[in-house]
Amino acid sequence: MRIKRGMSLSSVAKQMENVKVLGPARFGKAVGILSEMFASKDYSNFISLAGPIVPGGLRTVLTDLLDHKLLSGAVTTGANVTHDMLEALGHRHLVGSETMSDAALRKRGLSRIYDLLVKQRAIEDLEKNTYRMLARIPETSRANIASYELLWEFGRQLKGKRSLLSVARKRSIPVFCPGIFDSMLGLNLWTFSRLNTLFINPFRDFSKLVDLSYESRKVGVIILGGGMPKHHVLIANSYRGGVDAAVQITLDRPEGGGASGAPLEEAISWGKIKGRTKLATIVGDATVIFPLLTLAALERTKPY
Amino acid sequence: MRIKRGMSLSSVAKQMENVKVLGPARFGKAVGILSEMFASKDYSNFISLAGPIVPGGLRTVLTDLLDHKLLSGAVTTGANVTHDMLEALGHRHLVGSETMSDAALRKRGLSRIYDLLVKQRAIEDLEKNTYRMLARIPETSRANIASYELLWEFGRQLKGKRSLLSVARKRSIPVFCPGIFDSMLGLNLWTFSRLNTLFINPFRDFSKLVDLSYESRKVGVIILGGGMPKHHVLIANSYRGGVDAAVQITLDRPEGGGASGAPLEEAISWGKIKGRTKLATIVGDATVIFPLLTLAALERTKPY
Amino acid sequence: MRIKRGMSLSSVAKQMENVKVLGPARFGKAVGILSEMFASKDYSNFISLAGPIVPGGLRTVLTDLLDHKLLSGAVTTGANVTHDMLEALGHRHLVGSETMSDAALRKRGLSRIYDLLVKQRAIEDLEKNTYRMLARIPETSRANIASYELLWEFGRQLKGKRSLLSVARKRSIPVFCPGIFDSMLGLNLWTFSRLNTLFINPFRDFSKLVDLSYESRKVGVIILGGGMPKHHVLIANSYRGGVDAAVQITLDRPEGGGASGAPLEEAISWGKIKGRTKLATIVGDATVIFPLLTLAALERTKPY
Amino acid sequence: MRIKRGMSLSSVAKQMENVKVLGPARFGKAVGILSEMFASKDYSNFISLAGPIVPGGLRTVLTDLLDHKLLSGAVTTGANVTHDMLEALGHRHLVGSETMSDAALRKRGLSRIYDLLVKQRAIEDLEKNTYRMLARIPETSRANIASYELLWEFGRQLKGKRSLLSVARKRSIPVFCPGIFDSMLGLNLWTFSRLNTLFINPFRDFSKLVDLSYESRKVGVIILGGGMPKHHVLIANSYRGGVDAAVQITLDRPEGGGASGAPLEEAISWGKIKGRTKLATIVGDATVIFPLLTLAALERTKPY
Repeated sequence: MRIKRGMSLSSVAKQMENVKVLGPARFGKAVGILSEMFASKDYSNFISLAGPIVPGGLRTVLTDLLDHKLLSGAVTTGANVTHDMLEALGHRHLVGSETMSDAALRKRGLSRIYDLLVKQRAIEDLEKNTYRMLARIPETSRANIASYELLWEFGRQLKGKRSLLSVARKRSIPVFCPGIFDSMLGLNLWTFSRLNTLFINPFRDFSKLVDLSYESRKVGVIILGGGMPKHHVLIANSYRGGVDAAVQITLDRPEGGGASGAPLEEAISWGKIKGRTKLATIVGDATVIFPLLTLAALERTKPY
Repeated sequence: MRIKRGMSLSSVAKQMENVKVLGPARFGKAVGILSEMFASKDYSNFISLAGPIVPGGLRTVLTDLLDHKLLSGAVTTGANVTHDMLEALGHRHLVGSETMSDAALRKRGLSRIYDLLVKQRAIEDLEKNTYRMLARIPETSRANIASYELLWEFGRQLKGKRSLLSVARKRSIPVFCPGIFDSMLGLNLWTFSRLNTLFINPFRDFSKLVDLSYESRKVGVIILGGGMPKHHVLIANSYRGGVDAAVQITLDRPEGGGASGAPLEEAISWGKIKGRTKLATIVGDATVIFPLLTLAALERTKPY
Repeated sequence: MRIKRGMSLSSVAKQMENVKVLGPARFGKAVGILSEMFASKDYSNFISLAGPIVPGGLRTVLTDLLDHKLLSGAVTTGANVTHDMLEALGHRHLVGSETMSDAALRKRGLSRIYDLLVKQRAIEDLEKNTYRMLARIPETSRANIASYELLWEFGRQLKGKRSLLSVARKRSIPVFCPGIFDSMLGLNLWTFSRLNTLFINPFRDFSKLVDLSYESRKVGVIILGGGMPKHHVLIANSYRGGVDAAVQITLDRPEGGGASGAPLEEAISWGKIKGRTKLATIVGDATVIFPLLTLAALERTKPY
Repeated sequence: MRIKRGMSLSSVAKQMENVKVLGPARFGKAVGILSEMFASKDYSNFISLAGPIVPGGLRTVLTDLLDHKLLSGAVTTGANVTHDMLEALGHRHLVGSETMSDAALRKRGLSRIYDLLVKQRAIEDLEKNTYRMLARIPETSRANIASYELLWEFGRQLKGKRSLLSVARKRSIPVFCPGIFDSMLGLNLWTFSRLNTLFINPFRDFSKLVDLSYESRKVGVIILGGGMPKHHVLIANSYRGGVDAAVQITLDRPEGGGASGAPLEEAISWGKIKGRTKLATIVGDATVIFPLLTLAALERTKPY
């Protein structure tokens, strides 16, 4: 590849594509797929989020995509929702180090995610606010609510300009959180549910996700990390015969056989992906690679 | 380390422990922790299962542990439950290869997990049987059921001698599947729910898991792979101040910051683990390492 | 981080640096370190190359850096030299796939590196040319030659405009290949040595590398992949009290204890690196990450 | 798989083999291959050592195999030789932690390998002893010596009962160290060479390794970690049409295209391995997996 000072990211990606082998070919191909997903009116795009995507700095990258309707839905872990809400409530994480003593941090009321620290006080504040926001939702709604409906409610009440949940609500884009109960936020939902009506129904979420994908002419998916979000967005598309295009960024490896590290091709045999032509897996850190892919794709497509 | 032909696994583990550094130290320490978890009446032990644990051959390893009450609970992905039910219904997976054409497999009605193939026909048979078994559950139960209650019902009806679900039912040990809807089995539950009453309530599961751990004098956890099962079993123990001992086997890496690859120590800062002394992480394939750890630990404890 | 369509890579890197945690912080920091290494006259910079850096498309990225004297030396595996020479002789690799049958490829005279194919015929042509070029080197030189001297000779004779060896020769920058004998090129050197005088002396290389680093005001190193090149460039700097700045890109992991996956910090305890302030490790694919880092650093420094 | 308390490792391996897929199948197959390599008189076996194999506790595992002539040669990094010599001189490593401050360790004269600490004083003692041992080698020998010849000399003079070098010398089994200069020991060799005659010739090593493999009816290789040792042992066998059997244990991944993480099958296309039937790769930590594989294989073969 030939690179020159001042070259645009899209041009670098083109140079990488020309290498035709190894990592650069996959990066280059991914940019091509993403730019088609962003440019074509036919595509409805879904993103799955696992790992510290929000605390890793991609919050506004995602809200920009939502705000410009380049995404039709997101499937996320509860942790990313928790962090979005913490930030919407004005809490910031602290910068630590991966070699800190966790027992000492515990004593200081700090919890660690690699080199990032969260104050227990912020988590307590989230609890109070969650109860407050839940109380404002009519009990009849709470009796059988989808996670995306609940998160829209939170987004509406939080009014965060850079909040994933608020922007998603504003644009009526569902944020699915099938494992919402499995998070710090989820603990609050659970304790609330012990004294109040709250029934989160993942089947309502799944129906919505299946309907959305079924009605789409073409479906593209962006997979950041693995876990349930990856599996969920893919399995929901099996009813329409699979997705049309997919880009995956992960550091998990395939040999153990888990879904997180599985190559996208494997999903063809399950009917979750249509064919090989529009697939790219990049072995890397999603919080580094995704912003670069996105910028390169946007340069080619001018959606905003 | 000194090893000799005919040496017992427990002795090899002791030799590894003596190395005191790197991988062998962790393997040796894990055997010591596990044997204490198995030997002491004070310990209630929980296991989390992510990745192809059941299709990877650990099904009977797990049923033996359940049958001898060495486990007090399991938290698993829906995929492992799906495979346990497929096998209980008499279906066997086929042996393939990780380089096969997935499009060709799709045409032949075969779905792939690394080098393992599942017949679509088996999955259709599971659907039929799931409906049949669900219909036998009283509608009032189905209106608000925990995943562990549902799986006990399936276990009771399946009557598989080597089935995880059946043995768990026989021994009244809950198998929690917080993401049960996100699996091939989950698709059947979802379609059933569209015409029939079925309301799976993860809060019921969580209450049970928290109660179980809260009532335990000591809690030990075995973590095979990452994902929601790992996070779930740990977060449930934060109400009792954390688990007392933990062994983790994973190929995921820590630098990305995801919970799956996080070192156990990190959970101390979240109050999910009590302290450093009884923790061991082994970087490796759980389907290879766990049977070896278990055998070595059993040699020291004579529980059965 | 905030990213905007058309943003320069350097600005994206600045946004990543502001995240202050996880992968983005490391990417951002690496750009800062690299730009200082490129901008400051005090710095002599060395690069280590392991893995398919040349066939992965970084050949001209490297020759540009050499041509503008932004590098003072390179330490590489024999494979990268082999591929540079193959390309200088006019041979191109073919595009294959990582799932091809290797036995079938063998029959067709093709050898595989992941999804890249090399013609055996090209390798035979390299053999012929290597003999020819060796014969032109005076026997007295061949009696005790450093790898960098030998490679300068090849570079001089090959005259490839985009050849690493030729550009390095033109700019009098040594390319060290301490394991040159361990490569396809090395086989040719070995067979030549059985009938002709050829004595490659790694101590001559090491003396040159130590002298170069010793005479430098400051030393910066760029580590692409691990292996002997990484270790070699670091150990040579222990005589001057360690390097001043280092950027590492690798997919290898630390827990096994091997030098390839070791964090840069570890080298401080060996006196190979001076301190923590100017170190950055990015977990990722060097053939994807390095061009992006380089472009971002060049934007800030205007060296060419 | 079915496992029972008190089961032999060989029986566990057989149970794993029966799983036929994923990690257990590879572990089981590897035991079968190793036991054939150990039992058959036709096989000459070579082992490659990269990463902290000796400090990781495998020193006596290896010396036992050498002592019983189950290995015909070893190819190692300089680091493993360095550690063997340190231990033969009576130095022991200390137990540290991977989160220690490297700057603080440096001040205390300790160098770190993950969680293992080496005293700088021990390294100084090695220097003194290396000079002493070198001085006893006749200058004519030193003028053109292979690494295996040099290491036999060291082994003869060290007289360590558990020393890899000493036992290899006693049994006349060559230990090749193609990158011997790239290690702490190598620094001593280099400084010695500046004032004294010392010319280490890797071509002499390679000739010996090629001859040994060429004369063997069948060749089996055991690959612990990647790096130059892995590549070297394989490329030397290309002259005889490839090895007949190979077992590889590594944590490196394939997607980057480097030789360290490459699947064994790839080497078939290069003529370094004959065919697919007797190959097994285990993704794991060699210091944990190899002793277990060895014990299981020895149980089946009764060689000592």
